Amino acid sequence: MKIVMEDLGRFFKLGRDIWKRTGWDYVLCNVSREDLKLGDVVESIDLNKVLSWSGEFYGPTPLREEVVKAMGYKVTKDEVMITAGTNEANFLAIMQLVEPGDEVILEQPTWMQAHVLCKALGAKIKVLKLKEELGWKWDIDELTELATPKTKLIFATRPNNPTGALWGKGELKAACDIAHDSKAYLLCDEIYRGLEWEQPRSEAAVNCYEKAISTSSGSKSLGLEGLRIGWIATQDKELLDRCMSMRNYSSETTNCMGEIIYTEALKPEKYKKILEEGKKRGREGREVVSEWISKSKVFSWSPPAAGFCSFPKYNLKVKSWELCETLLNEPYKTYLLPGAPFGYEYHVRLGWGTSKPEYIKAGLKRVDDFIKTCK
Amino acid sequence: MKIVMEDLGRFFKLGRDIWKRTGWDYVLCNVSREDLKLGDVVESIDLNKVLSWSGEFYGPTPLREEVVKAMGYKVTKDEVMITAGTNEANFLAIMQLVEPGDEVILEQPTWMQAHVLCKALGAKIKVLKLKEELGWKWDIDELTELATPKTKLIFATRPNNPTGALWGKGELKAACDIAHDSKAYLLCDEIYRGLEWEQPRSEAAVNCYEKAISTSSGSKSLGLEGLRIGWIATQDKELLDRCMSMRNYSSETTNCMGEIIYTEALKPEKYKKILEEGKKRGREGREVVSEWISKSKVFSWSPPAAGFCSFPKYNLKVKSWELCETLLNEPYKTYLLPGAPFGYEYHVRLGWGTSKPEYIKAGLKRVDDFIKTCK
Repeated sequence: MKIVMEDLGRFFKLGRDIWKRTGWDYVLCNVSREDLKLGDVVESIDLNKVLSWSGEFYGPTPLREEVVKAMGYKVTKDEVMITAGTNEANFLAIMQLVEPGDEVILEQPTWMQAHVLCKALGAKIKVLKLKEELGWKWDIDELTELATPKTKLIFATRPNNPTGALWGKGELKAACDIAHDSKAYLLCDEIYRGLEWEQPRSEAAVNCYEKAISTSSGSKSLGLEGLRIGWIATQDKELLDRCMSMRNYSSETTNCMGEIIYTEALKPEKYKKILEEGKKRGREGREVVSEWISKSKVFSWSPPAAGFCSFPKYNLKVKSWELCETLLNEPYKTYLLPGAPFGYEYHVRLGWGTSKPEYIKAGLKRVDDFIKTCK
Repeated sequence: MKIVMEDLGRFFKLGRDIWKRTGWDYVLCNVSREDLKLGDVVESIDLNKVLSWSGEFYGPTPLREEVVKAMGYKVTKDEVMITAGTNEANFLAIMQLVEPGDEVILEQPTWMQAHVLCKALGAKIKVLKLKEELGWKWDIDELTELATPKTKLIFATRPNNPTGALWGKGELKAACDIAHDSKAYLLCDEIYRGLEWEQPRSEAAVNCYEKAISTSSGSKSLGLEGLRIGWIATQDKELLDRCMSMRNYSSETTNCMGEIIYTEALKPEKYKKILEEGKKRGREGREVVSEWISKSKVFSWSPPAAGFCSFPKYNLKVKSWELCETLLNEPYKTYLLPGAPFGYEYHVRLGWGTSKPEYIKAGLKRVDDFIKTCK
């Protein structure tokens, strides 16, 4: 098949290439956390550990048990499979579900993985555009119109990447009902779930519909990105078995060090502690960005309800790729992501992760420096 | 797409299911080692480690440098990409190379992954049967006949899984020449390379041909299977970039704990020490099996030249699946793999890994116990 890097991937690559040459001063597209250390999760690592696989095709039972509890899934451990991060979880489900000619409904803006894979698989892609004026919620009437008996899959990220939008009241239920009428799967990437700023933790899709698939990990909320552990949860055991078959011929199993560290990280008290510490730092960063936006004559946003990033628009004449490439280079050396690859021109993905307030302020100052040159 | 578990995967699953119910007493299909502990590789794990990704799309530079040195590749670190084991390395290359209708030449017996993936991708599969009477070598005349200008890929495991055969004199060069004439890629899974029993380490395919792809890891030779680290090496940079693109939308990056542990394990002295210790134990096990075979009136083999397993044939009337399923259950509780899923009836994959001689003897005694019931 032919999986080709799309524009967002190309910009990531460009960013890294510039970083190798000159470095960056400020990263303002951070969606993860960097404060967490291995020692914050475990007291020690047992050097007597044998480095073999767990022997369980779905991943270690103790880890799957902790996932169910920590995530509040209303399914059993046997409806959860451990994967190499949320990305592999999405990959396995999409690859096994989508056939050439299938209709799929993919939101935009979103994490572009589903778009890339569905295109490579020869699916007919229908785009559901999120509307800023609706606070980046789905237009349910539009979704109803897009869905047909041929719809195989509806894809969402909730909390949304890049806007930070949550499901609105009744929105998830409406989406499940529409999927049900089409006999379609609803795949929801919930990697930012747990990072809600004002509201309680949002509902997991897997709890709401028999053909819903929740994918997630602690990559963003817990800062465990490098461990490459995540999961798929679904009531549809046949699909889970197919994902396991696909993984058997791709990455085969998940890694044993990540498995043991995650099993610790997800234990109730540890999970709560790590999550709350990250949220505290993330909230401080969000305050800084919020204040900057409120004073800006150029940038405005629909405030992100969850997660470490936002998707503000700006009123400059320069397009988003050019804006962000310019900012990457001297004298700004500040890394933001352009909105165009997400399908929205004159927007940027602006993230703060768990960076310190002074760092974020200094980065935003560089953006202001650039804005001055545009006047 | 539709990736379906083939018979070998189904037997693995069956074996695990029986293990969950009743356990096994003896594993005689072990192709890896179990003696290695984390502490044999590293003195300690730094608890100050931040659990983020390396930031390098091909994997950490220090690890790629150690791979090139330890493997004796005549390519640079920029022609190596780190993957989640050899399996993911094969997966990325096959998925990005093979299009519907492409001709591929796949050996048998072999690791069945390439067969499964090429079938799912809609390729036209031509099977190159290894011949026991040639010591499980390729029949080069037959390969010449199978190759056409439409051949996209030739797949091998060398040392071979399950037979332990090495490239014969001139065989790798001949294969490269035939691939070259067809403008085909030669993908060689070299996971057992370094475990040669009598001969020096066999040549890596990547050193011999501009469209050769060597995949490998320390899963078997070093006992690091659970870490999910491996690599692709090829002079074809464009292919390596395509593999990286595919990985960007699947498992995204390799795991940071595996990366640091592997970087230590591959350092010259450490690598040599770990490898030699494993070979010492593996050689002892091979002696036990060899003696048993020489005395057996039922089993015979072409002795494995490398690796921890062999592919003996037997002269009983019971077919291999039935034989192995019977052995898995009471009163034998001994785990071997049937030859039929590899394409060879009345054969088994008999492996010993680094199990202790007494353990292997006791397992083989169970096989003898079963044989007695057949007379």
